[in-house]
Amino acid sequence: MAKVHNFSAGPGILPPDVLKQAAEACINFDNMNLSLLEISHRSKNYVKVMDEARALIKELFEVGDEYEVMYLGGGASTQFAMVPYNLLTDSGYAAYVNTGVWASKAIKEAKIVGNTKVIASSEDKNFTYIPKGYEVPKDADYLHVTSNNTIYGTQMKSFPKCDIPLVCDMSSDLFSRKVNAKDFSLIYAGAQKNIGPAGSTMVMVKKDILGKTGRKMLSMLDYQVHIKGESMYNTPPVFPVYVTMLTLRWLKANGGIAWVEQLNQQKADLLYGEIDRNSQFVGTVVKEDRSNMNVCFLLNSPEKGAEFDKLWKEAGIDGIVGHRDVGGYRASIYNAMPLESVQALVDVMKAFEQKFA
Amino acid sequence: MAKVHNFSAGPGILPPDVLKQAAEACINFDNMNLSLLEISHRSKNYVKVMDEARALIKELFEVGDEYEVMYLGGGASTQFAMVPYNLLTDSGYAAYVNTGVWASKAIKEAKIVGNTKVIASSEDKNFTYIPKGYEVPKDADYLHVTSNNTIYGTQMKSFPKCDIPLVCDMSSDLFSRKVNAKDFSLIYAGAQKNIGPAGSTMVMVKKDILGKTGRKMLSMLDYQVHIKGESMYNTPPVFPVYVTMLTLRWLKANGGIAWVEQLNQQKADLLYGEIDRNSQFVGTVVKEDRSNMNVCFLLNSPEKGAEFDKLWKEAGIDGIVGHRDVGGYRASIYNAMPLESVQALVDVMKAFEQKFA
Repeated sequence: MAKVHNFSAGPGILPPDVLKQAAEACINFDNMNLSLLEISHRSKNYVKVMDEARALIKELFEVGDEYEVMYLGGGASTQFAMVPYNLLTDSGYAAYVNTGVWASKAIKEAKIVGNTKVIASSEDKNFTYIPKGYEVPKDADYLHVTSNNTIYGTQMKSFPKCDIPLVCDMSSDLFSRKVNAKDFSLIYAGAQKNIGPAGSTMVMVKKDILGKTGRKMLSMLDYQVHIKGESMYNTPPVFPVYVTMLTLRWLKANGGIAWVEQLNQQKADLLYGEIDRNSQFVGTVVKEDRSNMNVCFLLNSPEKGAEFDKLWKEAGIDGIVGHRDVGGYRASIYNAMPLESVQALVDVMKAFEQKFA
Repeated sequence: MAKVHNFSAGPGILPPDVLKQAAEACINFDNMNLSLLEISHRSKNYVKVMDEARALIKELFEVGDEYEVMYLGGGASTQFAMVPYNLLTDSGYAAYVNTGVWASKAIKEAKIVGNTKVIASSEDKNFTYIPKGYEVPKDADYLHVTSNNTIYGTQMKSFPKCDIPLVCDMSSDLFSRKVNAKDFSLIYAGAQKNIGPAGSTMVMVKKDILGKTGRKMLSMLDYQVHIKGESMYNTPPVFPVYVTMLTLRWLKANGGIAWVEQLNQQKADLLYGEIDRNSQFVGTVVKEDRSNMNVCFLLNSPEKGAEFDKLWKEAGIDGIVGHRDVGGYRASIYNAMPLESVQALVDVMKAFEQKFA
């Protein structure tokens, strides 16, 4: 079959070799002659997987034992609730930066837990830029930001300086570039963009920020319970964590974040370069805030949509229809996306210009 | 490689054909030439999977549109919290039957949410029986029971008559036997015993019991939010739900619950028959409450353990070491376990008796 260029916004593209190993583990995991889907998560063969999956996060982030790593079910949406539930005190307040739908959902959950202030927002221009120049309050319990906004294609190129714990939803650009992880007290990410399949959410937290609310917590929402259980307080999402571990291993083996950041920059430069050069297309966000993960663009003549759509479909391109809030096109170019797939899209854009300009 | 007889207590054995299809989907799902692990959960190909997975539950339970089905992340442990969070009013109380560690964990979470009474318990005899003859209060918000107790090997053979909503944790015997689903207002089950891999929990709820607490709820803990989102309020555990759908399809194609109940009875009769006949072994629970899913037994002479362990390991048997709370052995004989594997264990027990009696 012809190659499919998978630009899906998430769950997104994973490395072919990871998929091959995942398929093998469904039949015979770790030479046990049993499927990974039907063995105990307490078996030494699986505990080893969980340990490696947790250790790789700390290794890639270059942090020490002041941080703990968990893989939890329930998606990043559950983290929208767990963050305030674990960090927001009854007498204090949480500070949020609103950069889109996902940030707004996080804010909504925080408001259910306690006092919450939105200290900066780009809602005035449909989230087409990243707010800057705001002051981070010194008395808030924490500041929550979203590093990359999948729907709009914006990305924080730098993070606010903070005297309070900085919490970041990195769901859509985790390990796509170098960040100074030690500037963050809590980082979470639904795995299904850059580091694995759906069903598992990575949470890395600095232990010293926990246990301060005095709140009596439901066990499954309590980070300290999961930390104590070494991310196996209950049965974890076994297979999703395994595939995440394989993807992190793949990243490390290929050169780690330095390698992938350079590759991602190359892909983004190629695609944004074409958007800016091509007379038929226009980008949707402020240039300095353009995401290197999700590239959003519009046709200058939307009535030519059917012609463009025909061309990219013929080229084996999949998943570039924009989110309904933005319209147009969105090409998600996560870590596992090869340069050749981006080139295939650029070639289609050039061909479209030649035929329909 | 020699066949492994997989008696794991959970995650447990799945049908070989399901595992084969799961492996294929990791490479090429639904002829999309893409892996199931890297496509959008909103794609028509996957929405179809979720729809079928939800519909099969209602079909196998023979219930109508007064019930809704969800597949959620976070395991049955999250349901321990969600049940009281959605059903327990501030002025009311919840009634629980305590039949072991998992029931106790459910009780612990309910107590965090509100008033909770344990109306019956078998803790006095280390949960080796199912409490009977208790009266179900008419004024409680709901009654919570655990249908099968994996650790101890006990199973409720009938369920209490109830004028209040009956909630049941069926994690370890869902669809292993016929139950009258209409007697229940809420049934939940971590998939990883009888219906799929870890990472997804099935919840079936009668809509009319919801929305009565007046509690302002965190979205991910609110059943009504998930129902409104057709079990896709957020990205679901895509792959675990797919494998669950395949397992339910397998069950239906083979003759449904009538078929599997008869097979499960045959397996249980064979194994319990040998435990009772064999001079070297003794069962651990009251006979009338013996589980048809988890068969717990001890050696009459524990000092012969090394000899017995050697024999079953040589026979390719895996996963029969008992839980630390009970000791001895536990053979989990879930739906996908073939009769021949139970026969293999019985043969080992007979051989052990002949050699070491």
